Amino acid sequence: MAADIWFTERQTSDVTLGLRVREVLWQEETPYQHLMVAETAAYGRLLTLDGAVQTTERDEFFYHEMIAHVPLTVHPRPRRVAVVGGGDGGVIREILRHPEVGVAHLVEIDGRVMEAGRRFFPQLSAELDNPRAEIHLVDGIQWMREQGLQDAKLDVVIVDSTDPVGPATGLFGEVFYRSVHDALGPDGVLVAQTESPMLQPHLIQQAQAAMRAVFPHVYLYLAPVPTYPSGWWSFSLASKGPRPENARAVRLPTRYWTPAIQQAAFVLPPFLARLLSQAGVAG
Amino acid sequence: MAADIWFTERQTSDVTLGLRVREVLWQEETPYQHLMVAETAAYGRLLTLDGAVQTTERDEFFYHEMIAHVPLTVHPRPRRVAVVGGGDGGVIREILRHPEVGVAHLVEIDGRVMEAGRRFFPQLSAELDNPRAEIHLVDGIQWMREQGLQDAKLDVVIVDSTDPVGPATGLFGEVFYRSVHDALGPDGVLVAQTESPMLQPHLIQQAQAAMRAVFPHVYLYLAPVPTYPSGWWSFSLASKGPRPENARAVRLPTRYWTPAIQQAAFVLPPFLARLLSQAGVAG
Repeated sequence: MAADIWFTERQTSDVTLGLRVREVLWQEETPYQHLMVAETAAYGRLLTLDGAVQTTERDEFFYHEMIAHVPLTVHPRPRRVAVVGGGDGGVIREILRHPEVGVAHLVEIDGRVMEAGRRFFPQLSAELDNPRAEIHLVDGIQWMREQGLQDAKLDVVIVDSTDPVGPATGLFGEVFYRSVHDALGPDGVLVAQTESPMLQPHLIQQAQAAMRAVFPHVYLYLAPVPTYPSGWWSFSLASKGPRPENARAVRLPTRYWTPAIQQAAFVLPPFLARLLSQAGVAG
Repeated sequence: MAADIWFTERQTSDVTLGLRVREVLWQEETPYQHLMVAETAAYGRLLTLDGAVQTTERDEFFYHEMIAHVPLTVHPRPRRVAVVGGGDGGVIREILRHPEVGVAHLVEIDGRVMEAGRRFFPQLSAELDNPRAEIHLVDGIQWMREQGLQDAKLDVVIVDSTDPVGPATGLFGEVFYRSVHDALGPDGVLVAQTESPMLQPHLIQQAQAAMRAVFPHVYLYLAPVPTYPSGWWSFSLASKGPRPENARAVRLPTRYWTPAIQQAAFVLPPFLARLLSQAGVAG
């Protein structure tokens, strides 16, 4: 009888997710974090960083489609896009489905994540060698600060970060959002993953308040991501002008995202609307 | 240092959810199933049947509001309602928020579930003694068959069942749905919980195909339920006539459900639309 091997994520101090593991394929301490790749029975290949699920083969499409296509259709004509984090390549793959995008910068601090993507997740990393993808293995906070000094502005910035501990902490604050604002052109749109509405509501409040200090329009939208804590995830969208209700109804070959799913994702339940108004970030 | 106690649900053979337990409050073998009540750190009071999460204090509102208010607003004037299962009282509580409902039958096979609701979940069981609630501690399949012979027809039937193993198996099949059809009046609406779109898609296909064999209009809608497998749940709605797009825009003091959330819940992602069309149950 085969050994019973489980990966367990301590999603909070009081909640765990367990996934049966067929084989641990890779483990290493990178300069920034612990990285593991395993083959799971339920979700196929799994990538973890510091013990937290980043992505799985079977449910990655919810997250990658929703973090990419929403800002790219809210912006009227996205040509220059940047992703901070997301070294596995999943967000770049979705961005490059939009033919009007001329360049997609991938700004990943940890080159080992990209290496794991290329080696173990061919469906995610497929577009990393696309000539429209420009890869920068540097600190996203510093890269963004330098972009603000450039003449060529970005249209969309996507923050595909890990949780706000370790290397990603600075990516959830007002100082970073100000750099993003300065790097974006006049119709600029920012989207960041902002954790679980059920388990990290305080973090949503913080991130939304910090965005609102910098951007005139700030929104929250929601999607299922089964292997993330609570299975339900939030994304915060900040805009210099364009509004979600005017998003372009683009057609793409997707599994979760559609223009109708996108409109539905911005409908907030009363308990979350109250949470945002308590933080002074409603409407 | 206190002992480290965890409740773990084997959601499938390959996925677990773990919840830290402060105290196990009750355990018993009822005539039908194993019942446990515990105080958890993350979600407050927890009720399990045969080791599966039924409800928790902190996330019960997603499920109870979505299984009750959707059919009750799709029906043009619901006066007579029946719930099969749901002995904890959560669905009855939501139903009785609709003043036009004259009687809400609760048909629960296991009286011990209701007892646990009354004793440990006052927020769920609050309306069980409401004079508009009629409690029947009998088999729902047989009760429904007898209803079909009555002159007084039901307007809405809600199947708040456990998973399709053990006592609930018969509640997912065509024979039972035919009894429901016969028990419903001309505008009758049925809603049943039909498990996780991520982990039990075959079950959704089966239930929808069985409903379609009996009812002219069948729909699927979705909601987050963080402590259920994958955190994302499906409900199947079958109707003799009324359609979700014409639902009444009722105002109620809720935490998740609103008329706008309800409309959004019927928007299906492409992978699920394909799943239904494969089962010949689309549109």
